[in-house]
Amino acid sequence: MAKNTVGRLIAGNSTDSADIVYATGFFAPDEFFYAEVDGHKYAFVSVLEFARAKAEMNQDVTVVDWAEISARAGSEYRGCLPAGISRVFGITKWIVPPRFPFCYVQQLKQFGIEVELENGMFFPQRKIKTAKEIEFIRAAMKATEEAQCQVREFIAESTVNAQGYLEWKGKTLTCELIRSEVEAEFKRKSFSAVGTIISCGPDSALPHCTGSGPIVAGAPVIADIFPRSDVNGYWGDMTRTYVKGKACRRLREMHAAVLKVNESVEAMLKPGIECSAMQDFCIRTIEGAGFRTGHDADGIPCGFFHGLGHSLGLEIHEAPRFALSDHELLKPGHVITVEPGVYYHDIGGVRIEDTVLITETGIENFCTLTKELEVS
Amino acid sequence: MAKNTVGRLIAGNSTDSADIVYATGFFAPDEFFYAEVDGHKYAFVSVLEFARAKAEMNQDVTVVDWAEISARAGSEYRGCLPAGISRVFGITKWIVPPRFPFCYVQQLKQFGIEVELENGMFFPQRKIKTAKEIEFIRAAMKATEEAQCQVREFIAESTVNAQGYLEWKGKTLTCELIRSEVEAEFKRKSFSAVGTIISCGPDSALPHCTGSGPIVAGAPVIADIFPRSDVNGYWGDMTRTYVKGKACRRLREMHAAVLKVNESVEAMLKPGIECSAMQDFCIRTIEGAGFRTGHDADGIPCGFFHGLGHSLGLEIHEAPRFALSDHELLKPGHVITVEPGVYYHDIGGVRIEDTVLITETGIENFCTLTKELEVS
Repeated sequence: MAKNTVGRLIAGNSTDSADIVYATGFFAPDEFFYAEVDGHKYAFVSVLEFARAKAEMNQDVTVVDWAEISARAGSEYRGCLPAGISRVFGITKWIVPPRFPFCYVQQLKQFGIEVELENGMFFPQRKIKTAKEIEFIRAAMKATEEAQCQVREFIAESTVNAQGYLEWKGKTLTCELIRSEVEAEFKRKSFSAVGTIISCGPDSALPHCTGSGPIVAGAPVIADIFPRSDVNGYWGDMTRTYVKGKACRRLREMHAAVLKVNESVEAMLKPGIECSAMQDFCIRTIEGAGFRTGHDADGIPCGFFHGLGHSLGLEIHEAPRFALSDHELLKPGHVITVEPGVYYHDIGGVRIEDTVLITETGIENFCTLTKELEVS
Repeated sequence: MAKNTVGRLIAGNSTDSADIVYATGFFAPDEFFYAEVDGHKYAFVSVLEFARAKAEMNQDVTVVDWAEISARAGSEYRGCLPAGISRVFGITKWIVPPRFPFCYVQQLKQFGIEVELENGMFFPQRKIKTAKEIEFIRAAMKATEEAQCQVREFIAESTVNAQGYLEWKGKTLTCELIRSEVEAEFKRKSFSAVGTIISCGPDSALPHCTGSGPIVAGAPVIADIFPRSDVNGYWGDMTRTYVKGKACRRLREMHAAVLKVNESVEAMLKPGIECSAMQDFCIRTIEGAGFRTGHDADGIPCGFFHGLGHSLGLEIHEAPRFALSDHELLKPGHVITVEPGVYYHDIGGVRIEDTVLITETGIENFCTLTKELEVS
């Protein structure tokens, strides 16, 4: 008890803390705690989760019942489990992740226990995916590609009515219909997709607009599909843009510019490439193709105004990212998206996104599906 | 700028912060900020979300582009948006919710800005549901009841094979099959359910075990179904326990004890009732019926060892709760679950859960489905 020990501590559940899932492999809807002390790993769970946690948690993690901590720490620690853990393990300072809840910092302070932020990522090794993690992501990407095929089939199987709307099996084909069928099919494969983007026309110029209403022939349909495995928590992410029938010249030019960036970047990617250089390349290439970035007359952002890509794993958006501020060099084992886009509110948007693994010599592209714009 | 102003600040996305959804009505996958200053409400979003946020956010919230804050605050605030907001609005102290990320507290401190935890809930008014919120929960509960009917039908339509396993349309009926079909159907109604509990036999004695493997005749099947609306973010929650064919005497006694508590509590609920009294009643009644709570010979918790119920709304688990430590008095507008259960690892568990609205005189029960155990 008189030791002056520094430990590492996470508080979270399997939805809001990728770190706690990474450390424990355990899925729980309610908050629990994970600690590293003197090279040992512990998880602290309520009696409600105790038996399940012992059965399901990574074998190198010792599962402890909250009640045991409360009993050993004493009544003055009632209602403040992190302080009780500190007392039992003789901790005087915890290193915590960036999003550690402030309420526990305050409670620990009252017991004289220091809290310090981890300098950087809590588990920097999460950036380099292991063979097992790559398999999980590959499986997620396979399901995601199947969903893209499903979207393409909806459009291909539809006919165009007199108003220019798509009709599928006697119904108006809507963004909502495609989204609900795609997301339902994911559940059959033990994946969860929420907020799948199926947006058409002007809506597709808002990159995070999920989309609503009928699919219109000749207008761009952006399908940005990003499911999470219910079993292991890993994500997939992939975008295609479709047009039923013929696209106008401007849309074809937008598509050609975006496709060129997507393919050029994928051809350049390999270990040692600096993330910011790819973002810079994308900005310059899209500008060079004549697509201006800024705000339109209505004050709506237009052109290319998001990151070229982000890593993914247990989080849908992880580091490193293709951003001007990210000077990290790519390494084998990084898994990152390549998703250039251009957006103008009058016509809509075009985005093409693959998820790729950085290998020793280049990339493995998890996406094999065509990037063609027009669907007849 | 020389003002000494206190503001209220939230950082989060629509998955991890119910408070930010409550304040803005806006769904975003990435973190954004919400602030209240001098009676005005602001949301701070990236350029990626700006146009959509202006269109979709609650009308009393002013949407501000992060770039505008960066430009006005000056280059020394680059990379620390909360500090930039503080500078622009002349804030010297922020009041924040319990789970406010510690990294921002540290950043703000470096700029001399104080951070204080809200004493209690950030929006205590979230406990008392408005008419609109009650409609959202009623709709979620309607979909949840339909899912329970779907589970009951799976069991009713199945036959029992020579090994005692259920067969449905020529396939072995498994927990996984029921779960994936129930969760797929939710997506068709714009709800998301993840981790739906369909557990059978000994697994059903672990209250949060999601369940796996074949459904066995005569064994308890716990179906605990809790979807969230993709459109408004409100939850539903409901549990039934089923047995295909005849239940043994012990299981029938467990069911009778649980049903009695469920019905007795629901008959007692009305404004002024203390939450802890209901938990105490449940513990005593289950004990009085001869069901011991503790640990079995294998160290697995048994009997009744969870809360009798929790409120729900934008979070699946909210205050007040039926717990010995919760002395809050029920009020009209509270929406709370009533979910007694008993669990023994040799036989399995029985849990019956309704979600009810506290009214002026008693309750409105959102659940009308039978609580019968046996399905023929």
